[in-house]
Amino acid sequence: MQDRNENFVSIFPPHALLYQETVRRALLEDLGNAGDITTDALVSKDDKVTAKIVARASGRVAGLDVAACAFHCLDPNLIFETHLSDGQDARPGDTLAVIRGHARPILTAERTALNFLMRLSGVATATRDMVKLISSYPARIVCTRKTTPGLRALEKYAVRVGGGANHRFGLDDAILIKDNHIIVAGGVTEAIRRVQKCAGHLVKIEVEVDTLEQLEEALQEGVDAILLDNMPIKMLAEAVQRAKGKAITEASGGVTPENVCLIAATGVDLISIGWITHSTPALNLALELAVTA
Amino acid sequence: MQDRNENFVSIFPPHALLYQETVRRALLEDLGNAGDITTDALVSKDDKVTAKIVARASGRVAGLDVAACAFHCLDPNLIFETHLSDGQDARPGDTLAVIRGHARPILTAERTALNFLMRLSGVATATRDMVKLISSYPARIVCTRKTTPGLRALEKYAVRVGGGANHRFGLDDAILIKDNHIIVAGGVTEAIRRVQKCAGHLVKIEVEVDTLEQLEEALQEGVDAILLDNMPIKMLAEAVQRAKGKAITEASGGVTPENVCLIAATGVDLISIGWITHSTPALNLALELAVTA
Amino acid sequence: MQDRNENFVSIFPPHALLYQETVRRALLEDLGNAGDITTDALVSKDDKVTAKIVARASGRVAGLDVAACAFHCLDPNLIFETHLSDGQDARPGDTLAVIRGHARPILTAERTALNFLMRLSGVATATRDMVKLISSYPARIVCTRKTTPGLRALEKYAVRVGGGANHRFGLDDAILIKDNHIIVAGGVTEAIRRVQKCAGHLVKIEVEVDTLEQLEEALQEGVDAILLDNMPIKMLAEAVQRAKGKAITEASGGVTPENVCLIAATGVDLISIGWITHSTPALNLALELAVTA
Amino acid sequence: MQDRNENFVSIFPPHALLYQETVRRALLEDLGNAGDITTDALVSKDDKVTAKIVARASGRVAGLDVAACAFHCLDPNLIFETHLSDGQDARPGDTLAVIRGHARPILTAERTALNFLMRLSGVATATRDMVKLISSYPARIVCTRKTTPGLRALEKYAVRVGGGANHRFGLDDAILIKDNHIIVAGGVTEAIRRVQKCAGHLVKIEVEVDTLEQLEEALQEGVDAILLDNMPIKMLAEAVQRAKGKAITEASGGVTPENVCLIAATGVDLISIGWITHSTPALNLALELAVTA
Amino acid sequence: MQDRNENFVSIFPPHALLYQETVRRALLEDLGNAGDITTDALVSKDDKVTAKIVARASGRVAGLDVAACAFHCLDPNLIFETHLSDGQDARPGDTLAVIRGHARPILTAERTALNFLMRLSGVATATRDMVKLISSYPARIVCTRKTTPGLRALEKYAVRVGGGANHRFGLDDAILIKDNHIIVAGGVTEAIRRVQKCAGHLVKIEVEVDTLEQLEEALQEGVDAILLDNMPIKMLAEAVQRAKGKAITEASGGVTPENVCLIAATGVDLISIGWITHSTPALNLALELAVTA
Amino acid sequence: MQDRNENFVSIFPPHALLYQETVRRALLEDLGNAGDITTDALVSKDDKVTAKIVARASGRVAGLDVAACAFHCLDPNLIFETHLSDGQDARPGDTLAVIRGHARPILTAERTALNFLMRLSGVATATRDMVKLISSYPARIVCTRKTTPGLRALEKYAVRVGGGANHRFGLDDAILIKDNHIIVAGGVTEAIRRVQKCAGHLVKIEVEVDTLEQLEEALQEGVDAILLDNMPIKMLAEAVQRAKGKAITEASGGVTPENVCLIAATGVDLISIGWITHSTPALNLALELAVTA
Repeated sequence: MQDRNENFVSIFPPHALLYQETVRRALLEDLGNAGDITTDALVSKDDKVTAKIVARASGRVAGLDVAACAFHCLDPNLIFETHLSDGQDARPGDTLAVIRGHARPILTAERTALNFLMRLSGVATATRDMVKLISSYPARIVCTRKTTPGLRALEKYAVRVGGGANHRFGLDDAILIKDNHIIVAGGVTEAIRRVQKCAGHLVKIEVEVDTLEQLEEALQEGVDAILLDNMPIKMLAEAVQRAKGKAITEASGGVTPENVCLIAATGVDLISIGWITHSTPALNLALELAVTA
Repeated sequence: MQDRNENFVSIFPPHALLYQETVRRALLEDLGNAGDITTDALVSKDDKVTAKIVARASGRVAGLDVAACAFHCLDPNLIFETHLSDGQDARPGDTLAVIRGHARPILTAERTALNFLMRLSGVATATRDMVKLISSYPARIVCTRKTTPGLRALEKYAVRVGGGANHRFGLDDAILIKDNHIIVAGGVTEAIRRVQKCAGHLVKIEVEVDTLEQLEEALQEGVDAILLDNMPIKMLAEAVQRAKGKAITEASGGVTPENVCLIAATGVDLISIGWITHSTPALNLALELAVTA
Repeated sequence: MQDRNENFVSIFPPHALLYQETVRRALLEDLGNAGDITTDALVSKDDKVTAKIVARASGRVAGLDVAACAFHCLDPNLIFETHLSDGQDARPGDTLAVIRGHARPILTAERTALNFLMRLSGVATATRDMVKLISSYPARIVCTRKTTPGLRALEKYAVRVGGGANHRFGLDDAILIKDNHIIVAGGVTEAIRRVQKCAGHLVKIEVEVDTLEQLEEALQEGVDAILLDNMPIKMLAEAVQRAKGKAITEASGGVTPENVCLIAATGVDLISIGWITHSTPALNLALELAVTA
Repeated sequence: MQDRNENFVSIFPPHALLYQETVRRALLEDLGNAGDITTDALVSKDDKVTAKIVARASGRVAGLDVAACAFHCLDPNLIFETHLSDGQDARPGDTLAVIRGHARPILTAERTALNFLMRLSGVATATRDMVKLISSYPARIVCTRKTTPGLRALEKYAVRVGGGANHRFGLDDAILIKDNHIIVAGGVTEAIRRVQKCAGHLVKIEVEVDTLEQLEEALQEGVDAILLDNMPIKMLAEAVQRAKGKAITEASGGVTPENVCLIAATGVDLISIGWITHSTPALNLALELAVTA
Repeated sequence: MQDRNENFVSIFPPHALLYQETVRRALLEDLGNAGDITTDALVSKDDKVTAKIVARASGRVAGLDVAACAFHCLDPNLIFETHLSDGQDARPGDTLAVIRGHARPILTAERTALNFLMRLSGVATATRDMVKLISSYPARIVCTRKTTPGLRALEKYAVRVGGGANHRFGLDDAILIKDNHIIVAGGVTEAIRRVQKCAGHLVKIEVEVDTLEQLEEALQEGVDAILLDNMPIKMLAEAVQRAKGKAITEASGGVTPENVCLIAATGVDLISIGWITHSTPALNLALELAVTA
Repeated sequence: MQDRNENFVSIFPPHALLYQETVRRALLEDLGNAGDITTDALVSKDDKVTAKIVARASGRVAGLDVAACAFHCLDPNLIFETHLSDGQDARPGDTLAVIRGHARPILTAERTALNFLMRLSGVATATRDMVKLISSYPARIVCTRKTTPGLRALEKYAVRVGGGANHRFGLDDAILIKDNHIIVAGGVTEAIRRVQKCAGHLVKIEVEVDTLEQLEEALQEGVDAILLDNMPIKMLAEAVQRAKGKAITEASGGVTPENVCLIAATGVDLISIGWITHSTPALNLALELAVTA
């Protein structure tokens, strides 16, 4: 546990180049054609304010750089000062960051900045909670490609912030033979042989299996990792036992807070969970304003 | 209720021009630089399959056109045949759509298509459930701008599919004076007066109030709608009473399945809920394959 | 009148995010593949100059921020100093702005910066002239969606700078039922009823009518505004009378400097004019150079 | 004259690749985030109509392909049938094109399609009128780079359709030494010498001169063309005489319908006019609808 | 060898979505603002031709789909008929493909289509030649990230077509610790340990070593592959021997046709060569025209 | 020669606006979705280094601004200090530039920066070598449109840096009638006449001829330049003689270091060479690191 918490401080955020355009598009989506007609009509262009982003619920913070990017995209002169860092846990009432400068860009960027920060912190929080539940086991929580379209790199980062590990970032960075591939290839053995002929020397191969027979085929051919899909706990334990020392094992399918410890107790190396990215509630955050004298 | 269900069939999806680029970017995000190295290595370019999108849980379907767009973006010759329509309710095991054609593009687009469809159906389902709860009241469920960055038009559509109504699409299509604006302006009255001087003749004005005093100020100045934020039920009921006939009323803040009927019972016109877009679980869907002879 | 002039100083320009990409594209359109081959060949990269943008005709200035953006897009270190502001009136010979810095970017951006500034000032000037003509009436001049493709937000802004008001920014920010919609729906009443079923609570509805019969239908159904299209003055006056207190009225079609006062004298609230955006002459401006010692 | 009219039919429109993105952006500008909320609410998705684009004024038609592109961008299945061609003259009431198909995309694309067509036809008409005025002289009317940002290739095409010729398309396709360049270089001779050292063998050189002295310098150095800027008719005639056989001559500055014949009578080769692109009224066109049985 | 040749037919080209935008941009780069002014002026829009792409030198063909994409991007109705396939060897005079249809788009796309096809075939040819040289050894030729900016996926594909294998596609699909990383980390051991703590379970790790001491460190820590950089043949042979069975070995640095067999003879698994992508001559191809009756 | 060397210092690089997007895309191509996972895992975000770009071979430097742009795109605070300038010749071991600042962005941008710089310097070097070979003749080396897709403006610049001159930048900046055009038009005379009718006054015309008969036709019609394609030296000399004083002459086809002097000796004005852009080896450069105390 200790070890994992230390990791948090060294967790690397994606380079800004990877999300600047995403943030710019999100702002343009909110501005529409006419811009922020409320703020423009109501706030003088010289008004200055101090605003703070405040937690309204408990959770793990993730995405402060992205939120800052939203504010700076509208006004590079805004001061964005963090009080917490990505990877730290906020309690209700905690201030995550303070923004100072002209009121117009702060109010106009508010919703976009919070939409990113709330979602990423939500993902980090859900991940953290699952990680905590299995903290006495060596298994790691990993995410999937079931991410929000357009936000993959950011959500993968939020999973790391939550103490989880990343699975593939896309279809291109490793080979994962899934059930549908096996159907097309006509079997596990054939599927593995086909990809082995093409795989580059830096590409790992993982195969999804549903039965112990498929598992044996996979172990026979030799793969880097095996995804044990939707297996009952007992079968999962047996599978993990058989694969030990031969391939990394990953449990997947129907993982809940209720059964995650049982799964981890099988000795499986990884537990992958789609809902930590596709079905997590956002962390409740708000922007509070104080007018500058 | 009847009336609302009828609405579903006439619910208009956003024009494809509004999401084609979003879908293309999502596919590129998944393809990375090297593309789908598993499918490319394993599936012959002439293999054909029939696949179906199947529900693994109950929910309201939304986003079939978007899913089709993902498949067609990779291969315009794929046949995408819907078995259910947006606005219909799927039960576990139901087939939403069948896709026929070359196996490669179907397998490569699978995740992206499902990521859109699962999220939009999740939003529609959560909205539907809230709408159902208050079906004996005239109040309508409306969404907010707390949407996923990049997906606003689609999520707003999913809310309509769920039987909800849309609030503003962005900062530009109506004036909504929020608490922070009131702080900057120095009061409700001043804030309303400022925007009235600038508002075009087709722009409605809504103001957020926290107290009955603020409500009176707003009613005095004359606005189209009043957002009653986080008021206790009793105060909310009083506010609705006072505003009756003078402005549309909207309740907001802390709305849950548990309290939504109490809120609706106050006679409020609209109940806005952020979490139907920012915190809803995705609808569980899968793509199942059958190899074509 | 006084009131309107004051407005000018508080007129809000669109946020730079809304036009930066448009300016960048305009510069790239002028640079082509090879860039400014005249300036590059002729001007040393260390040469510095002072240039001024000078009016060659009288008119209302609009678009200085956009012109500055063009210069800064090529060289962020250029000093762009305004001598007049958007909303002020220039006479021939007046200096609008002074630009100091390297000669190359100033000469290369010159045409693009002027093309924006001349057009926007042209729109503002034409609007101002119409506004002046009816200054003794309460009617306001409003623009339409007949704007230059790609420049809508900027031209809408220029109309505000000219003292006019904005109509819809796009198809999405209000409902305007036009003659063609009425044909499809089969009548004014049916058309209004259809949109009322779908319109969000912050969406206003306007309907175009050609006859007093259509007007009565519209008033019966209840809409926010009525566009009285191409009516003879007498019919217009009658229509305005009937709609008084029930809906905002807008006169449209064939408005000229010659008849605008007659139209305004009917008591109509708004007079919309397409040609202030689609057919106005540009304001004649030039960039004059002084070589720096 | 005859000769020039024949040219019209062979005038080549820019390849669609050069304006498709511009048209797409213009449509998105009009659709905003929510799309055409009037049409979507009011028109059933199965409704079909026949629409025609009708002239409400006399003018030269230009831009039918661009208008078609706007309709097809929203619905590739729309039938766009031209009744007139680019380069032909329309009289009030004439049908330019008929569009058949689903009502929604036709109504949604209407404004964007017309905005392009009206502007380009306006440019073509103004050009045609100037060309006609000087039809008994050999001089040609040419345009400048004072075009609408983002529409240069299209407006240059409209000038060709009007019987005019194109000047430079951008800063990159020829060298034009202007007054400001001469100031920086310290004189006409020096300016010409500098560019001659760099100019590629397929790059022509033109220089702007204000006086006969400058003209002599230019002729001495040898250039392809000389822009005679704002010269009184008599001086212009003298300049043309001196340059005859040595360089192409172009008159520029303050050209009006009133003085264009006098200018042409000097024997000058080209008369360049900025306002045929930057200050011309759009041609009045409308889309009329007939509901299909 | 036989085996590798068979591979060629199953070599998967990148999905068109991965290069369509690149091709579109290349065409726009060539069209500039004014388009193909030679072809537009000279060729009637109804002229049809048959053209063929002919080899003027011997080489391995790669990129026919990309060339087709260039033609179809200008005119989807052109017929592009391949006579050879990617992976086949062309001799001078061989026809690679025949294109039929309108003359204008064929002539306009010619240069862009050939620029892609000549470069990709050049890369494939250089790779093929190196692969042939070492055909009696088990070693494989692999490429590097020293590719042309913007063309990585296509050049990596050309390498596969040439019989080579791909190294990393980018910085994101595997870990490669290079000399500079080791300097920053302070040593091979420390560098490996740091990345092992962060690497996902599907991410392989390779480390570059210059000496046998560094090699021992790497083998001790355990990595998937070792890049033996610029080692003299004897040291290389020793290194390969020591790593055998413990890690994949890759030779790199200064590989030429002259020394590649000596390198392969050491038993090294992979030989990576930068110049097959960054310094290879294009394959000489031409488009020959036959006017259609 | 002296004269040409002087030119180098005044050679103008393309404005950054023309390549910033290209550089950004190249970086994103290398970063993929997950970014630089090696550097992020291994280098602390506070580590600072000094790096230098060092020549490993002799060659003409070109593209330092572009390399700087790559570093600054990832971190605007990096110091990029040039030790050599574009147009200077580097020997092995020479330092071209020193970069100081955070280690992460320097290591992440390294490959992209070098890919640009190595290619552009390779083009400049090849050009320089050809220019040197013919330094005792007046002929100039010119490039073609056979450039790398996406890099034309940069490669054209590299040719200038190498002492060569630029031919057309695209299809739009001059008319070049090639063999295929002549086939379509039915002959040299007809082809020239067609384009003369359309060519703007600042557009030069060049025609490609294969025989002395075609040459005579071209001279008869009058063109600015004649491309003498693939002529044997003797025929070339004859052609040059005949064209002298009537048109600029350009030799093209099969130019090698072996025959370039013979070609130049014919007195031809220009010698165009495709391979200086499409088939030149990159200049070998490396980034060497020194950790900052």
